[in-house]
Amino acid sequence: MQFRQIKFADAKIVFNLVQTNVWSVCYNNFMKALVLTNKDQPLNLQEVDDLIAGPNEVVVKIYAAALNHRDAWIQKGQYAGLKYPIVLGSDGCGVVDSTGSENDSQWIGKEVIIYPSLNWGNDQSYQHPQNFKILGLPDNGTFEEYVKVPASNIFLKPKHLSFEEAAALPLAGVTAYRALMKRGNLQNGEKVLITGIGGGVALYALQYAKHTGADIYVTSGTEEKIAKAISLGASGGVNYNNENWAAELQDLAGSFDVIVDGASGDGLDSLLNLAKPGGRVVLYGSTKGNPSSLVARRIFWKQLNVLGSTMGSPADFREMIDLVEQGNMKPVIDTVFAFEDGELAMRRMNDSLQFGKILIRITNNTK
Amino acid sequence: MQFRQIKFADAKIVFNLVQTNVWSVCYNNFMKALVLTNKDQPLNLQEVDDLIAGPNEVVVKIYAAALNHRDAWIQKGQYAGLKYPIVLGSDGCGVVDSTGSENDSQWIGKEVIIYPSLNWGNDQSYQHPQNFKILGLPDNGTFEEYVKVPASNIFLKPKHLSFEEAAALPLAGVTAYRALMKRGNLQNGEKVLITGIGGGVALYALQYAKHTGADIYVTSGTEEKIAKAISLGASGGVNYNNENWAAELQDLAGSFDVIVDGASGDGLDSLLNLAKPGGRVVLYGSTKGNPSSLVARRIFWKQLNVLGSTMGSPADFREMIDLVEQGNMKPVIDTVFAFEDGELAMRRMNDSLQFGKILIRITNNTK
Repeated sequence: MQFRQIKFADAKIVFNLVQTNVWSVCYNNFMKALVLTNKDQPLNLQEVDDLIAGPNEVVVKIYAAALNHRDAWIQKGQYAGLKYPIVLGSDGCGVVDSTGSENDSQWIGKEVIIYPSLNWGNDQSYQHPQNFKILGLPDNGTFEEYVKVPASNIFLKPKHLSFEEAAALPLAGVTAYRALMKRGNLQNGEKVLITGIGGGVALYALQYAKHTGADIYVTSGTEEKIAKAISLGASGGVNYNNENWAAELQDLAGSFDVIVDGASGDGLDSLLNLAKPGGRVVLYGSTKGNPSSLVARRIFWKQLNVLGSTMGSPADFREMIDLVEQGNMKPVIDTVFAFEDGELAMRRMNDSLQFGKILIRITNNTK
Repeated sequence: MQFRQIKFADAKIVFNLVQTNVWSVCYNNFMKALVLTNKDQPLNLQEVDDLIAGPNEVVVKIYAAALNHRDAWIQKGQYAGLKYPIVLGSDGCGVVDSTGSENDSQWIGKEVIIYPSLNWGNDQSYQHPQNFKILGLPDNGTFEEYVKVPASNIFLKPKHLSFEEAAALPLAGVTAYRALMKRGNLQNGEKVLITGIGGGVALYALQYAKHTGADIYVTSGTEEKIAKAISLGASGGVNYNNENWAAELQDLAGSFDVIVDGASGDGLDSLLNLAKPGGRVVLYGSTKGNPSSLVARRIFWKQLNVLGSTMGSPADFREMIDLVEQGNMKPVIDTVFAFEDGELAMRRMNDSLQFGKILIRITNNTK
């Protein structure tokens, strides 16, 4: 027996014929999505084709979605493999609406968060060089009422989180987990530097580091964000716009066992200098571009580990959820925008005004 | 009961009063050493003060010593912590002549190689930031008839090696071992790139890689050295003086699980590009200076491990000796110079003409 979905002219009527022989019928409006029609265009709320789950796929009704810098870069045309029109969004949380395979029908009605990578592959140490994708380009993402993903990409929503809190978790949460906990292997009592606090990855890293019992320092472009980071458990921080930020940081904190950085740029050499001998400097991005120079001696003489990290494997995602549940952690949420205000959300992300995740409420709900 | 050493005017008479109550008496000539009196000066063979082993120290009669690039840099005044006069030389092999502590007296007469680092410290992952030294600056090194080191620095000479072969092993051998085997964690069947073949570290790395069962590629500045590397087990190599060396190498070999490099410089970015996703790029030096740019994305997107490595711990040294014995490996020796020709040896090192280790025979012997 197989799950079937039947479509009529003006209403999507989904018949879920599940193993228990119970028919569940739900009526949906036309599906709406925030569509990016071309680079440098605003997101446009419009109707798009309904989705039908294929074998081993599920369709999730999205309650909340979250933004990532990736979405802003794609809107600006600064990302590999651009295509338009595209529905952005890597992060989403909702309820499983339909499944393409009977095996997955027990998921129907479950509250889930979506693991936002597709085709990571079999190697824990890196994503598949050809097949790996992140939800939201080239496949349509979570800024729409329903999203279709492989059934293996859905995980039960942590019970202590609302839909919006849970939607804030996936991409930044798993990126921070892999960078700080797996690659950086942060241990209790170690001193950690998290650069660019305010961004989603950095804030999750701060929460994981606090849970781990590390001594946490941060950098940011504003004093306000540093103060907020201290209120969340950091011991201190410096403003990276200060000319002597690295010296200030050394005076304040000494050197670091672990450094987690998504900026790269010319600050990278200073980070290598701030690392303890044998330290781990984890890079997960280059928002400040490439370093224009680097003192190689710092790396070999201090026996440093400069470790690249991107996203995280399904196993990392599972472990991240477990950690968030164990620590009863709540994502830091900056703003929740209405579905029709998606472009305002993009502007806020683009201007780096946020402290925490920027969300879009896709479906109104009471949870 | 304690070991004692008594000195007379014209001859050093050493009385070894050992636990077995046997007196051993040996007469030595005045001690000769190759002394560097100032930067940019030739090594000068001259008489120097005798050495007396203090508690937990041993004096080793040196049969053969080997050169490292470090010696050439110190002669050119390009090294941290310069002092003159200094006896250079980190590598030596010989026979234990006297010990400062009775506990160590069983070493007397033993053929030993010298672990050339002092005060590594207790952490396997890095050398002690303040105390660590390498033999040959600031402490007098092995280019002299006798050298004094802590008893913990001597290890039995591998039986299958001559004094000269064994003298070729310590600094380059342990540096290559840590870089390739510990930091790079090279595995059977992996593809490895060893840059700058001809240098001591690179040649040991080649031998360890062959023993491990890796597929080995090299770079060099001369076709002749590449041909020699192939005769020693490399699958192929390219000349790094060719403008398109990196593209040539990719055509020849594809990409690499492990890269071991002591050059850094502008080639480093190409090495990051040549590494496989999840690959390990081990840096143990920067003979070509610092990179003037670097594409940070290569590091994080490919989840690379850029791993600094310097020298090796005593444990690394022990494991390196075991590996050399297991593999019945013989160091590649370029030239053996007479003691009085020490400066010629330095010229050859300085001009990078060698393929393998450059040695100085300190004491004539028949072994």
